[in-house]
Amino acid sequence: MSLPLATRIGVVAPASRINENTAERVRAIGTEFGADLFFHPQCFLTCGHFAGEDSMRSDAFVEVANNPSVDALWWARGGYGANRIVGNVLPRLNEVARHKLYLGYSDAGFLLSALYNAGFRVAHGPVARDLEREGGQAAIARALRFLTGKATLGDLEPSVHDGLPLAAFNLTILSHLLGTPWEPNLASHILLLEDVSEPMYAVDRALFHVTSSPGIRKVAGIKLGRISDVPPNDPDFGQTEDQVTRHWCTVNAIPYLGRADIGHDAENKIVPFGAGSPELS
Amino acid sequence: MSLPLATRIGVVAPASRINENTAERVRAIGTEFGADLFFHPQCFLTCGHFAGEDSMRSDAFVEVANNPSVDALWWARGGYGANRIVGNVLPRLNEVARHKLYLGYSDAGFLLSALYNAGFRVAHGPVARDLEREGGQAAIARALRFLTGKATLGDLEPSVHDGLPLAAFNLTILSHLLGTPWEPNLASHILLLEDVSEPMYAVDRALFHVTSSPGIRKVAGIKLGRISDVPPNDPDFGQTEDQVTRHWCTVNAIPYLGRADIGHDAENKIVPFGAGSPELS
Repeated sequence: MSLPLATRIGVVAPASRINENTAERVRAIGTEFGADLFFHPQCFLTCGHFAGEDSMRSDAFVEVANNPSVDALWWARGGYGANRIVGNVLPRLNEVARHKLYLGYSDAGFLLSALYNAGFRVAHGPVARDLEREGGQAAIARALRFLTGKATLGDLEPSVHDGLPLAAFNLTILSHLLGTPWEPNLASHILLLEDVSEPMYAVDRALFHVTSSPGIRKVAGIKLGRISDVPPNDPDFGQTEDQVTRHWCTVNAIPYLGRADIGHDAENKIVPFGAGSPELS
Repeated sequence: MSLPLATRIGVVAPASRINENTAERVRAIGTEFGADLFFHPQCFLTCGHFAGEDSMRSDAFVEVANNPSVDALWWARGGYGANRIVGNVLPRLNEVARHKLYLGYSDAGFLLSALYNAGFRVAHGPVARDLEREGGQAAIARALRFLTGKATLGDLEPSVHDGLPLAAFNLTILSHLLGTPWEPNLASHILLLEDVSEPMYAVDRALFHVTSSPGIRKVAGIKLGRISDVPPNDPDFGQTEDQVTRHWCTVNAIPYLGRADIGHDAENKIVPFGAGSPELS
């Protein structure tokens, strides 16, 4: 009797770098979940703000995505920079790339959006570097169960029960996609939004932008994830994130469907884009 | 022989409030320039982040814009919040409003864009609160000369000599207009951009957004104003604002035309939108 084959997961860093120690710890955890994790060397490069030059980050992404011996592509982390490679990556992906699973969040949204538009299987959820968060081991376990096809119902954001196609984005990243060739097509979707480290006036401004956009106004509704680490507003903004989301949804005739269990924290649940739940164990 | 009639200038605050003392000092300076300044009481209201509730700010704007005894509408200041009233203001403006001059910058861009699209006479330049800046008196004098039809060549941004229609925006505000009904129509324009208090990764991200947008790609070229008070980037971004602007212009086949004399400072020169220089004294 042969052992079940491990799920082969390639990890890349389309934006900022991850440190080697974190990567090694995540790789070790992976083996417990039947995952054979490969951190592409690009993950550890440094070029100013980025994990290597644009060309190195896009080459690594394409190499892993197009590799038939890799089952899933996982983000090492967000940070900033996937927008700098999206236009170079997408045209180079082959049929093999289309049959993988892609998991990331935050800055990853630039690529998740483009991949989803092109018919790829993408999901919004924890990245490898989340191990460094308080309680981060739970986020890593969740991601690994999902990537190895052993997700439980508790790993997924409860909106999967709503029966409508889903998509999730960092609010600021989605704002920066609007009007570009990579703006997501979200007609009839439930759109889940989260953000971190933005003052409340900037959250309000991004919600104005997103809900005023004709494409986004076609969504079936918006759910608000966590808006965390909000710096003080001067003067006090006077409204909560729930109030401003309700305001902009009302102004733009978008159903506001309440809160979502996503955010920049270890509790961040997985949101598979599109319709239909993934296989659960 | 009668004295020349003063130019009547109505001041409103579509975003954040201005304090009474600054307003009184600007009003006094106005008399030296033949300007009869009226600060609408709305300028001094407070509602959380804003100079009064949305309805009060939009009513004040419409009241001043539609008033036939007012020659020009001037922004008390930027801050944040004009986007919250633009959809309510525009449909209520009458023919009188069309024959005024409008001057502001920064957050004012939300309204300047919508007004310019609708055929109004708008300009990007100093606001009343700039008096509080170091050397701010020069900015106020520049704005008052312009608003009273006595601008000198040195008051205007030198791009007026290029002979092409101009427009100027705060980069972050323009990013938040893309894809909305108020996105400016800038085909064949020279677009001047400036920003303040944004880390370099956010400047890069906004430049990606703006230059990737099909509407903005129709501009004749981009000039970069000052990017000031840039908070430290962690890690160091590794590229200057000039380099990132050049990068994104190259990627998106937009001519990069060098620097512009605008920014969040007392030197901020005036950019009349559209073609043709205004009358100079």
